[in-house]
Amino acid sequence: MGEHQMMSLSALIDARDGGKTDPEEMVQSSRDAIAREEPGIGAFAHIAENPVIAPQGPLAGVAVGVKDIFDTADQPTAYGSPVYPRHRPRVDAAIVELAMRRGATIIGKTTTTEFAFFHPTATRNPHNPAHTPGGSSSGSAAAVAAGMIPVAIGTQTGGSVVRPAAFCGVAGYKPSYRLLPTGGMKHFSPSLDTTGLFAASVRDVALFAALLTDRELAAGPVEPSKIRVGVYRCAQLGDADPDMRAALEQAAGRAADAGFAVSDIAEPDALARARDAHGVIQDHEAGLVCGSDLARHRDQLSSRLIEAIERGQTISPVTYDDARRNAKRGRAAARALFDDVDLLLTPSAPGAAPKGLETTGDSRFNRLWTLMGTPAVNIPGLRAANGLPLGIQAVGRFGGDRALLAAAAALEQAL
Amino acid sequence: MGEHQMMSLSALIDARDGGKTDPEEMVQSSRDAIAREEPGIGAFAHIAENPVIAPQGPLAGVAVGVKDIFDTADQPTAYGSPVYPRHRPRVDAAIVELAMRRGATIIGKTTTTEFAFFHPTATRNPHNPAHTPGGSSSGSAAAVAAGMIPVAIGTQTGGSVVRPAAFCGVAGYKPSYRLLPTGGMKHFSPSLDTTGLFAASVRDVALFAALLTDRELAAGPVEPSKIRVGVYRCAQLGDADPDMRAALEQAAGRAADAGFAVSDIAEPDALARARDAHGVIQDHEAGLVCGSDLARHRDQLSSRLIEAIERGQTISPVTYDDARRNAKRGRAAARALFDDVDLLLTPSAPGAAPKGLETTGDSRFNRLWTLMGTPAVNIPGLRAANGLPLGIQAVGRFGGDRALLAAAAALEQAL
Repeated sequence: MGEHQMMSLSALIDARDGGKTDPEEMVQSSRDAIAREEPGIGAFAHIAENPVIAPQGPLAGVAVGVKDIFDTADQPTAYGSPVYPRHRPRVDAAIVELAMRRGATIIGKTTTTEFAFFHPTATRNPHNPAHTPGGSSSGSAAAVAAGMIPVAIGTQTGGSVVRPAAFCGVAGYKPSYRLLPTGGMKHFSPSLDTTGLFAASVRDVALFAALLTDRELAAGPVEPSKIRVGVYRCAQLGDADPDMRAALEQAAGRAADAGFAVSDIAEPDALARARDAHGVIQDHEAGLVCGSDLARHRDQLSSRLIEAIERGQTISPVTYDDARRNAKRGRAAARALFDDVDLLLTPSAPGAAPKGLETTGDSRFNRLWTLMGTPAVNIPGLRAANGLPLGIQAVGRFGGDRALLAAAAALEQAL
Repeated sequence: MGEHQMMSLSALIDARDGGKTDPEEMVQSSRDAIAREEPGIGAFAHIAENPVIAPQGPLAGVAVGVKDIFDTADQPTAYGSPVYPRHRPRVDAAIVELAMRRGATIIGKTTTTEFAFFHPTATRNPHNPAHTPGGSSSGSAAAVAAGMIPVAIGTQTGGSVVRPAAFCGVAGYKPSYRLLPTGGMKHFSPSLDTTGLFAASVRDVALFAALLTDRELAAGPVEPSKIRVGVYRCAQLGDADPDMRAALEQAAGRAADAGFAVSDIAEPDALARARDAHGVIQDHEAGLVCGSDLARHRDQLSSRLIEAIERGQTISPVTYDDARRNAKRGRAAARALFDDVDLLLTPSAPGAAPKGLETTGDSRFNRLWTLMGTPAVNIPGLRAANGLPLGIQAVGRFGGDRALLAAAAALEQAL
């Protein structure tokens, strides 16, 4: 496919506010790009026929792709599953309504794996159509990477924002837990399900978050020497590809060259234990929240999803409560860790996007941070030997989203 | 109306397991009671025509009323609102599926105020039809109180389980946050929305929780002298009716007579401040999660709900984040408090059920504990001068549901 020219939200907003474009033209340019690129990518589950274009609002003219795990009243909502054909919810999910209230245009529903779990979509990686774009927010990442839309909305329960962002070479931002609303999404594990955002760069995704929420999240200037960057030396690093391990060292080196205060951080035991709690919590909750899908529509679920729900239903409350306690201890350890460091660098995934569309990749570098509720963002820019993007994940203190995004935007420049 | 004979879950389960009744007969007896009592009460939004009766399972034969804020695939789901006519979700809410999986019969949908907020239903208090049953879980409390069903499911975001239980003279149990799943409910404020249970007595509601979840929650014997009961002397006590204040002293006195270690507990400042955070958090989240209802169906919402959603949409993220921090400090103070005491006693409401159906009463004694996520249960048994029930609320340590229910069941005997 070669390289796609991505749409920069910052550039679009600047042009709009400077009178060089207007909302109609902005949305039309996305529609044109979708007409051109979508046949080769398959990032959309549905494309709006006559999308509403607001004349004003902070996001006026911004064409947003919404992962089809969120309810939309104007467009069909299938949650990546044949259980929900012709499903048209009566109201929009909270994040969709919020985007519309700020003036955004909901340009289409982006593909999701089945219930945002593992069963893949047919979406292709814009950097190489033989490779997965990652998941579960497959279409959101791919549509931004292919230059069809400037921004998209997704969700992460394990690694479903940061990983596809890494595979597609875009910025993917998983905010602190509850910073963005999840109301009106098809839940899988409510204590983990987190709404996240995609854009071409960290600066763009921070601007999107700011315009969407009216929070002061836009990435401002930073003083690198005052930012303590920890290279997170967890045991999982041994699972990463050589390319990925080299990319992490490269990122650390460039951060140091740019003046950041870089050091190595060992993984506290409490965080290693918390990582193991993620699967127990996710599966137990999925056993409850998807229990009725299994009971009523078993023949329309994938075998892997059936297994996950059934496994969850065998996890006892005692085991679940133990996992929640380990998660709580992990959060205390994470708080302590961020007294010594401002952000952590880790791989966003074990390597570049795997070949084939049968798997969406592995979330082992993401699950812990989803469980901790700490903000995380994929910093794009590096490449594997095969030319595919490699992503570096920056993780910040719970509630410290603004500082994380500012530092990550500066690191992105350094990479 | 006089007094209704309530159905005891413990007695029903004992009779079933002893071969003196069977699931068919158990459900039929609820159907008969509904046919007899429902016309005078109006506790049901919908009654199942041919409810499924499971031959076995821990809850086989138990007719459960489900608040119509939860999705049901076999019965219409209206969330107490005209926005959702003929709405029939494709799957059941997690708690509904769990109850069915354990063998329960979903006998009907019980009435809820609009979106579980304040706009009342036409449900009447079984103890006096001129009085409110409380809300928002109006039908769940009234149906149990009227002896139509042994148990019901509701939700609490402010005081929507404990208060109607108090007004109707039944046990209402709001578990620790996330002990019961909320998936598939119409959310109002996701960080507060809590699924809760109703039964004739504390012992019965504990048994229901145990059979439903497979947790060890059934109320076992306790040694009163080892249980430190704190009478919670918060400033709000001054807002309670004289009857209610007298009932709290009476409860404390009877607890002391029964051998419990009773003392007075002053409200920590951090908890007083956290109480004020509840409204900010609730309204901000409702502004997001119900934003699309307002945008798309404003003409079908009550004026009070419109006001609440609009008010929520004016609350800035900074104010919301401040309230969350106050809530967090409050939770730390609550943990410390429960180092000194095993359970707290407070009023469940400012007094008995108010006259009239225009209001469902006041949640000022409940909101703090919903926000803290601590388990709370209404202990029925006392009466106001006008003969209506007065409820005493027992509050326990987060995650200490089993100890709370056991102690509250013993206190119920003492009252």
